[in-house]
Amino acid sequence: MNVTPALVADLVGVAVFAASGASAGVAKRLDLFGVVFVGAVAALGGGIVRDLLIGAVPPYAFTHWAYLVVAVLAALLLFWLHPQFNRLRRTVLVLDAAGLALFTVTGTLKALDARVPAVGACVIGMIAAIGGGLGRDLLTGEIPVVLRREIYAIASLLGAGVVTVLVKVDVNRPLLIVGTTVLIFVVRLLALRRNWGASTPPGPSTPPGPLPPPPAGNG
Amino acid sequence: MNVTPALVADLVGVAVFAASGASAGVAKRLDLFGVVFVGAVAALGGGIVRDLLIGAVPPYAFTHWAYLVVAVLAALLLFWLHPQFNRLRRTVLVLDAAGLALFTVTGTLKALDARVPAVGACVIGMIAAIGGGLGRDLLTGEIPVVLRREIYAIASLLGAGVVTVLVKVDVNRPLLIVGTTVLIFVVRLLALRRNWGASTPPGPSTPPGPLPPPPAGNG
Amino acid sequence: MNVTPALVADLVGVAVFAASGASAGVAKRLDLFGVVFVGAVAALGGGIVRDLLIGAVPPYAFTHWAYLVVAVLAALLLFWLHPQFNRLRRTVLVLDAAGLALFTVTGTLKALDARVPAVGACVIGMIAAIGGGLGRDLLTGEIPVVLRREIYAIASLLGAGVVTVLVKVDVNRPLLIVGTTVLIFVVRLLALRRNWGASTPPGPSTPPGPLPPPPAGNG
Repeated sequence: MNVTPALVADLVGVAVFAASGASAGVAKRLDLFGVVFVGAVAALGGGIVRDLLIGAVPPYAFTHWAYLVVAVLAALLLFWLHPQFNRLRRTVLVLDAAGLALFTVTGTLKALDARVPAVGACVIGMIAAIGGGLGRDLLTGEIPVVLRREIYAIASLLGAGVVTVLVKVDVNRPLLIVGTTVLIFVVRLLALRRNWGASTPPGPSTPPGPLPPPPAGNG
Repeated sequence: MNVTPALVADLVGVAVFAASGASAGVAKRLDLFGVVFVGAVAALGGGIVRDLLIGAVPPYAFTHWAYLVVAVLAALLLFWLHPQFNRLRRTVLVLDAAGLALFTVTGTLKALDARVPAVGACVIGMIAAIGGGLGRDLLTGEIPVVLRREIYAIASLLGAGVVTVLVKVDVNRPLLIVGTTVLIFVVRLLALRRNWGASTPPGPSTPPGPLPPPPAGNG
Repeated sequence: MNVTPALVADLVGVAVFAASGASAGVAKRLDLFGVVFVGAVAALGGGIVRDLLIGAVPPYAFTHWAYLVVAVLAALLLFWLHPQFNRLRRTVLVLDAAGLALFTVTGTLKALDARVPAVGACVIGMIAAIGGGLGRDLLTGEIPVVLRREIYAIASLLGAGVVTVLVKVDVNRPLLIVGTTVLIFVVRLLALRRNWGASTPPGPSTPPGPLPPPPAGNG
């Protein structure tokens, strides 16, 4: 592996996502293995699903040891230092926004390079960015945060769309990567700062009666 | 994409499953993105897993935009109109039975065409039909409905078996597709109407003491 | 399929894991289909994920009917006989340790044979061994046991590491398989007997205040 700026950026994203997963594991009082496992899923899960979807097997996370090592180290650090981590909450949110941006851009580009059509490539880019967090929440018994709050996946999907358009009009790659990463990062930070959220269903927020159940026999 | 009867039928299944997923998301008070995401998983998840299992990557749902667009539109409609949707409950159950039938038949055929042996192809056909609902329930923090109630997966598996036998005896394809789709559809509707269910474990239905836990250390 | 000692050993692992999954399904009062489905996921899920990760599609469980048949039969037996099964708890834990050992060794070897690098192959071997139990727990709405207790995944990972080293130094295959299987089996039994566990996060075990949440907007 050559140590390129792209690799360093990618590994920063891996470390931040691993810390977020480990943090969720600590909150659930998992044991050391559990904390590291949830950290690794949060950090690498999105990329693994992305690679399965585009047929790039074995997935990158299994063939480039630096990814796994960084994820495990970040989760271990969180495990031992978690009170301090909590104090860094703002920094973590900023780094997390950077991870979201980077994973979206690399995921969308990999999908386009694997000849996935535009719409599908955008969705795969978003899955690469939010998939790890989904796995973290499923493993710790939570309804995924990304489905409930704020402009997070939307920022990713928007960015993936811009990446796709710029690839089609053949913009210079390094420029495209930097530009769209910054775009997603800024949108996400603005959403955090201004507390933007996606709409919630119309109707009272505490329902007056029983909620409409999903159609019964539909499994 | 040519607009064939098969495509139209498939998209009806996608729309109904998306509405069921979106309905579950609304019941959990997810935000707009969450509702659409759960709807898309319910509609497309089974087919995506089917394609991963038979090595057809990128999965169909990522290469044919009509599938994603129909799923998203159906979920959006449900999001804005959900009280009305609730009144259509009977219609939804019938359309859902149609989706179950169609996804089973196309899933089994795709697996057989990918040279999966008979037993495996039946299971893949069933996974194609019930996988989206499983994903919907996992994302919304429920034990999957399909594991708890009624003849749903069983109707799918039975139908997949009939598809496989008819393929082996080389029945004419269009006839086979129509016949087995109708068969699964009718079995499912009968199960709904007569309230058929699979057996539940022997023993009292409210256990007198603590339930037998799964074998402890087995992860 | 030739009936080799390896096949018999593998199928014993499948049967035990299926019984553990079915047992979890019975505890949640799933219906017959649900119990069998969770049993099959517990027995075959790890191997299916392993095969997806190394690109061996369709996965082995779908192309060799004996695996599915043994899983279904074991789950059915558990469904009908579960009070007796509960009395066999010690035997089940021993057989489960054997399943863990076997699935780790075969999973790691398959990954290495598919040219996955060492670190990735160890992780895939562990996933093959613990993946089914993870699926079982997710389907039944539990935080996975393997993330919370005892030396289980750690025994698997350790064994996968030894397998990898022995393959690199080119040890005779049958010897390697028997030796590492016994090693993992013994480590797991010792962990059970001596009640070894992985560390839990530092800090009081009942937290004095609200637990640190995972970083908010990170989906």
